Amino acid sequence: MRFTQYQAFSRLEQLAKTPVDLPAELTPERLTSMKGEALGLKLLYGTERVSSEVMEALQALSQESRALDCMKAMQAGEHLNRIEGFESENRPVLHTAMRDFFEQPNETPVAREAAKLAYAEVEKLKQFQPKMASFTDLIQIGIGGSSLGPEAIYLGLEAFHLPGKRVHFLSNVDPDEGAKILRKVDLSKTVVVVVSKSGTTLETLTNEAYVREHFLKVGLDPKHHFIAVTGKESPMDNPAQYLAAFYMWDYVGGRYSATSMVGLVMLSFVLGMNPVLDFLKGASHMDKVALENDLSRNLPLLSALLGIWNRNFLHHPTVAVIPYSQALSRFPAHLQQLDMESNGKSIDRQGARVNFETGPILWGEPGTNGQHSFFQLLHQGTTVVPIEFIGFAKTQYGEDISIQGTTSQQKLLSNLFAQSIALAQGQKNENPNKFFSGNRPNRVLLGSRLDPYTIGALLAYYEHKVAFQGFIWGINSFDQEGVQLGKKLATKMLDLYTGKSQDFPLGAAYLKPIAPGRC
Amino acid sequence: MRFTQYQAFSRLEQLAKTPVDLPAELTPERLTSMKGEALGLKLLYGTERVSSEVMEALQALSQESRALDCMKAMQAGEHLNRIEGFESENRPVLHTAMRDFFEQPNETPVAREAAKLAYAEVEKLKQFQPKMASFTDLIQIGIGGSSLGPEAIYLGLEAFHLPGKRVHFLSNVDPDEGAKILRKVDLSKTVVVVVSKSGTTLETLTNEAYVREHFLKVGLDPKHHFIAVTGKESPMDNPAQYLAAFYMWDYVGGRYSATSMVGLVMLSFVLGMNPVLDFLKGASHMDKVALENDLSRNLPLLSALLGIWNRNFLHHPTVAVIPYSQALSRFPAHLQQLDMESNGKSIDRQGARVNFETGPILWGEPGTNGQHSFFQLLHQGTTVVPIEFIGFAKTQYGEDISIQGTTSQQKLLSNLFAQSIALAQGQKNENPNKFFSGNRPNRVLLGSRLDPYTIGALLAYYEHKVAFQGFIWGINSFDQEGVQLGKKLATKMLDLYTGKSQDFPLGAAYLKPIAPGRC
Repeated sequence: MRFTQYQAFSRLEQLAKTPVDLPAELTPERLTSMKGEALGLKLLYGTERVSSEVMEALQALSQESRALDCMKAMQAGEHLNRIEGFESENRPVLHTAMRDFFEQPNETPVAREAAKLAYAEVEKLKQFQPKMASFTDLIQIGIGGSSLGPEAIYLGLEAFHLPGKRVHFLSNVDPDEGAKILRKVDLSKTVVVVVSKSGTTLETLTNEAYVREHFLKVGLDPKHHFIAVTGKESPMDNPAQYLAAFYMWDYVGGRYSATSMVGLVMLSFVLGMNPVLDFLKGASHMDKVALENDLSRNLPLLSALLGIWNRNFLHHPTVAVIPYSQALSRFPAHLQQLDMESNGKSIDRQGARVNFETGPILWGEPGTNGQHSFFQLLHQGTTVVPIEFIGFAKTQYGEDISIQGTTSQQKLLSNLFAQSIALAQGQKNENPNKFFSGNRPNRVLLGSRLDPYTIGALLAYYEHKVAFQGFIWGINSFDQEGVQLGKKLATKMLDLYTGKSQDFPLGAAYLKPIAPGRC
Repeated sequence: MRFTQYQAFSRLEQLAKTPVDLPAELTPERLTSMKGEALGLKLLYGTERVSSEVMEALQALSQESRALDCMKAMQAGEHLNRIEGFESENRPVLHTAMRDFFEQPNETPVAREAAKLAYAEVEKLKQFQPKMASFTDLIQIGIGGSSLGPEAIYLGLEAFHLPGKRVHFLSNVDPDEGAKILRKVDLSKTVVVVVSKSGTTLETLTNEAYVREHFLKVGLDPKHHFIAVTGKESPMDNPAQYLAAFYMWDYVGGRYSATSMVGLVMLSFVLGMNPVLDFLKGASHMDKVALENDLSRNLPLLSALLGIWNRNFLHHPTVAVIPYSQALSRFPAHLQQLDMESNGKSIDRQGARVNFETGPILWGEPGTNGQHSFFQLLHQGTTVVPIEFIGFAKTQYGEDISIQGTTSQQKLLSNLFAQSIALAQGQKNENPNKFFSGNRPNRVLLGSRLDPYTIGALLAYYEHKVAFQGFIWGINSFDQEGVQLGKKLATKMLDLYTGKSQDFPLGAAYLKPIAPGRC
């Protein structure tokens, strides 16, 4: 059955005609009662435009669409990455197996085998640690999921870094980026982690060649400095070229790969192994939470349903994620890939065009910074933007200053809560420029402290939110056919440059304005 | 007259019923003929869904709304920051005067006086250079416009940095951010630039106090390390506390202040004075371009009109800016503030509620990175996202590598052009997952090389694009009343923390989940 054919869909459309009027209905009781909680994370959603009727209908929607069964099937290793009746990747989706080494491991043979293989890589990484100890700098070469998730977590845990260790991320094929990074490192003390599942990603191979050339220039043998993270038997799985190879599998999509060796080699370098295990444990615990029936515990499902309410019934085209934590400055960039590459689709699992909106545009920057930037539009713009705020009770470093009777952390949280209330409640005023409509939906995800365990849980929370939305919409959240056309045309452009083919007149038209001597 | 009452508005609504079908109409001739050009920048818009009729109607819209007259009035110092009939800031908007020292300076007394004052600060900064020479690190403390624009330009020009100079931006009140930066610098060699026009910004004063305390802790006198950038006679204009004070004025809004001392003190530290003057010259030249009648020269007006077509007639809620230049990685964050804080408004200049959409949600990340992230949604999502690509013919460092017959810079540009064409043209396919609808509007802004002059021109190009859209919509792009309510409620929250007042039950409800011992 299609999304729009569920009974709950009609019920929700009905309810959306008169959504909760927050300026009238926002009370302390509402704020304290509308919440979910698991693993020390609380999701407070009293500032969403939902009533108990809406929540019941959303839960019915989740039941009709069998969202929990799909999550179970995913974690069990069923072939959820496919389009029925058409050629597609047709394979399991098993990023959860990358961390399924703790309590209650999945019992199905496919998932078990994947977890076993993943754990072997973790053990290999543990043994490998002494070989990385002498390096001070690590360059991670990889793009998309091989860069965004790992970098977001690297920055998120900077307070936990081992002293004297630095990581640089080289993803863009822009040659200026490589030139800049190479100016900053002593290559004799640098290890390079090259990440590409297929071993054929254009940007990554180009940057690898560029950096290898620089090692050779200064008389260093790249073989003693380069590590491959790749699929077994890919062109990069080549002991003659690399100090070591760590493996990834085709059942782990790039945007879901931060808990695989894609993230862990780099994280073990900068954090050591124990925090890496905490990080995996946090993610794994959230995987189990995502299987629970109780919506007040199953935070990813709760968040997915609230998102669907905002997207499909209140018709908001975007969603902002605003962490009140500077350490999470690049976390929205990771979520942008995770969400938009997964759910930016127009066909369902049967290959039929959808007749409803799928994944929203996800964007965001940290607060309080955003308050001094784009929050004007959030409060008074003509397009309403649903927001998920993220905050933590305690600081990471445990250092703070008290000014005018409050600490900076208290100021940070006060701003977060104030924004949540201001957006929901608005303000009447006779001066139209001081009038705030309110009814701008938002929720608050609160943790105790941003540590390795919590960031692991946070990562998995969003992975499963995205997957749940895909299950409910009935789309395939695990492929990315939409990136192929651009790749194909880029190859044609390159053929123009090399003179291999002139068969791309539109491309040739673009080359004229940048021909030498013209600018 | 209101936006929706212009004759051109009706004509455009009519034309928008059958917009150009790009898969059918995209030709090399279209790509080469639909362009604007000024100051070495080319704006190619053959991949927008516009016909010559649409372009004529857009030009008529610009004439009916007297957009060019408003731009002239703005640069002449008229009180454009106001809402008629209501209390408002009611003052001139003169960021253009901050750089009006080159050809054809504005002749009106107000603008002339502002330029004279600004130039005196530039001269002061020149004289001050030797005093900064001994420092290796600079911490810029400021938030919003005092951080986003300056940081975007700092990163944009990293290839031009003086050796051994580093800058750190401390904006967020999050105490972990200060703790992190202080671990990275030797305070004895660090100069601190504190930026606040009013001298009262909460985050900035808190971070200043935090950093001052650390100087005192290691026995250093902050007076020899701290520079104020502030309004004359603000609480920060205090020679007893600062090594020097540089001035800014209330007719330069935060988001328009990068070419004032807000950006220049820091930029002179890291680049030296001559590149700073080139930067100002690029911006000033674009200010003059923005006054020109010829739409094929007036790039900011051209871009503004194309944006209005996409926003108000094709009804796209967001716009993405995708620079194919890693150096511009934070430029979209600056543009996000510039655009959304300026035009995220719901009332017009007469205080009446608008009956049309104003500023879109602006977001973006560099390409090619984005291709491996959110481009899936751009190609196949259900919400269409208009895009402005930015690219440059040459690299900054002049270092590159040739792999498979092409350089990285050629690969970078090939990807940019390929994306532009792929989004516009789409692709038919019997497999629905390999089907691309096309008709996804985009344009390409091409420069020769990202240098100080060009980034100045780019900055002003976007400032004036935003201002033109505000003029055409008839809204005030220069205030930000929408940020006040959150500030007010944050103060109430802080009063809860200090026990000064309990009069905020909604805030108290939020404090419970983070009370000590609860998480």
